Amino acid sequence: MADVYQEALKLHEELKGKLGVNVKTRVETKDDLSLLYTPGVAQPCREIHKNKNNVYKYTWKGNSVAVVSDGTAVLGLGDIGPEAAMPVMEGKAILFKKFGDIDAVPICLDTKDPKEIISIVKALAPTFGGINLEDISAPRCIEIERTLKEELDIPVFHDDQHGTAIVVTAGLINALKVVKKDISDVSVVVSGTGAAGSSIIKMIHNLGVKEIYGFNINGIVLKEDYDQYDFLTQELSLITNTQNKRITMKEALEEADVFIGVSAPGLLTREMVKGMKENPIVFAMANPEPEIKYQDAIEAGARVVGTGRSDYPNQINNLLAFPGLFRGALDVHATKITEEMKLAAAYGLASLVSDEELSETYIIPDALNPKVAKTVAKAVGEKAIEQGVIHN
Amino acid sequence: MADVYQEALKLHEELKGKLGVNVKTRVETKDDLSLLYTPGVAQPCREIHKNKNNVYKYTWKGNSVAVVSDGTAVLGLGDIGPEAAMPVMEGKAILFKKFGDIDAVPICLDTKDPKEIISIVKALAPTFGGINLEDISAPRCIEIERTLKEELDIPVFHDDQHGTAIVVTAGLINALKVVKKDISDVSVVVSGTGAAGSSIIKMIHNLGVKEIYGFNINGIVLKEDYDQYDFLTQELSLITNTQNKRITMKEALEEADVFIGVSAPGLLTREMVKGMKENPIVFAMANPEPEIKYQDAIEAGARVVGTGRSDYPNQINNLLAFPGLFRGALDVHATKITEEMKLAAAYGLASLVSDEELSETYIIPDALNPKVAKTVAKAVGEKAIEQGVIHN
Repeated sequence: MADVYQEALKLHEELKGKLGVNVKTRVETKDDLSLLYTPGVAQPCREIHKNKNNVYKYTWKGNSVAVVSDGTAVLGLGDIGPEAAMPVMEGKAILFKKFGDIDAVPICLDTKDPKEIISIVKALAPTFGGINLEDISAPRCIEIERTLKEELDIPVFHDDQHGTAIVVTAGLINALKVVKKDISDVSVVVSGTGAAGSSIIKMIHNLGVKEIYGFNINGIVLKEDYDQYDFLTQELSLITNTQNKRITMKEALEEADVFIGVSAPGLLTREMVKGMKENPIVFAMANPEPEIKYQDAIEAGARVVGTGRSDYPNQINNLLAFPGLFRGALDVHATKITEEMKLAAAYGLASLVSDEELSETYIIPDALNPKVAKTVAKAVGEKAIEQGVIHN
Repeated sequence: MADVYQEALKLHEELKGKLGVNVKTRVETKDDLSLLYTPGVAQPCREIHKNKNNVYKYTWKGNSVAVVSDGTAVLGLGDIGPEAAMPVMEGKAILFKKFGDIDAVPICLDTKDPKEIISIVKALAPTFGGINLEDISAPRCIEIERTLKEELDIPVFHDDQHGTAIVVTAGLINALKVVKKDISDVSVVVSGTGAAGSSIIKMIHNLGVKEIYGFNINGIVLKEDYDQYDFLTQELSLITNTQNKRITMKEALEEADVFIGVSAPGLLTREMVKGMKENPIVFAMANPEPEIKYQDAIEAGARVVGTGRSDYPNQINNLLAFPGLFRGALDVHATKITEEMKLAAAYGLASLVSDEELSETYIIPDALNPKVAKTVAKAVGEKAIEQGVIHN
């Protein structure tokens, strides 16, 4: 691990920026200048002034995304500030380009005030076709995303919340095929109800899971404690724990077919896995050490195991979702990313594993598979058109 | 002219964005990802967190500029809004790339409130090595630039003010050589005291011109009327019109060696040029029609004539200044752009015309001359180091 860090540092020093700007056309002669700049440029300006939607026709807006962070929750490093967040946002931007052919720009903001972040992103909106929020600490990220989604007419997406949720949902769809269980019959325990956990709970609820138990540092989420919760947990209490049981995670797992962890290393023991219903499915995504080690989960009887790590099968990697999701949204000039579009992304992703390929150790495609973004994009774009959430 | 507009529109529609993002390194394998993104990327993050200046070492900050506009004063089109300003800002960005090898990003803001623009640009500062303000209406542009210059530790430059001033100053240095007059001996009339005019007046004052008469729609600027002026005109009144004369432009020109116009078409008549001191120098830069037509000025006896147009000799083109100015500032990690750095840029630009080449019709280099940006950059960077206005 020390080696990868030193090698990465060296590479970053050599590159001095992992991305740059490129000019898409010739700029050699005065005639070129008069078309690309004054006086010719006045004409597309006039056309956009007449009809704002023409900005998609004559500028990069239809292919650009701002990757916005305030540097408060960067990787596992925490609140390291906007400058120190830059290498991650540049990294995200190059993934957008490489996997989605999207022109993404890192934007690291020198403010932590949610209201100010909201007003800045709103002001930036004319320039970009979409906003990817990244590494903003919870629960601020929730307020920021929701307000922006309401007030902007371009897609706004907080990858830390929904990226993982889409990939987990895709993995769950296929894992249930492996164990031959129906979505509407299974019970799921979700450990962690923060940014990612809450999005996962909502998404698998929309997928059709009837019984979900959500756990956080205070134990199980239940309606009875509604008044003590923040708004996010309140929402979760309404769609989880239908019978309002005050039980431990070990007890909940005895009723569960699936464990989904976005919490902390070691929270899931072998004994807990052994206590689950037959053919347990375990997604243990705590970073860098999962809730249970891959090998331990397998040995305890888990039939399908996914983690966030690339050195085990079934890696739950956000890279499977965001490039295709934004590609699809941009292609149709979407005004927003709906729950249905996210589900369409999950189904599209799941469809990339054929029935012949599907197995315990292959429930989601490889992150480097070039078909991924195209398939996700198609599913997302079609859903946006079907829902009519596009600029005309 | 109709043709260039239709051709430009077609080209913009084909391109759908004149610029894009490019990835500067290979992203093919999982190993590549682990160096460019997690887990390796954590190491440059940590190093920047330790010392903020490392952001220049490991990210694009040392080569990136935000081209910021609110769309309130776009070309001659006026307040057309941020979306319609995008083609111009993209155009500016590709000029930055082509002539300065700078990664510039168009940022069109959906707000006209100077305070909000200031706070947004301040918040964006961690991401960029410099800020180029563009096409923001006067006098708001002055307040915005001044506040940002005071409060940020990266170069902030309003091209509409200072770009023209640098090129005019370079042109004046060489035109005075042609007519064999000394800077300290000449009188100059400046028509127009807005964003560009005020910067020109300050710059040629710093260059050593002793007598400057400034004119605007209310006539000559003079100390006597100080209390009636806005802050900008008040400042000009302190460095112009040393003897506090209440005279017309025609009368002022009778004492003048040089006319500099950034005002309106037709304001300078043949008679006025004829009334000037011998070997008059005329810079008539109103757009698209100058204060006096090139041919009329020549026929009235002007010895050296410059305009903003590319179809006459001595084009005063901002493109001669901003790419090299920012290139030089970025190369040395400058904290600001000082008056002295702008003067150094003007002298650098003037130096590109050798004594052998210098003539009435060749006082400034061609905008497409590839030596321009390098020479300006060198002069600006050296001055910044000399003045110690750099990040260490």
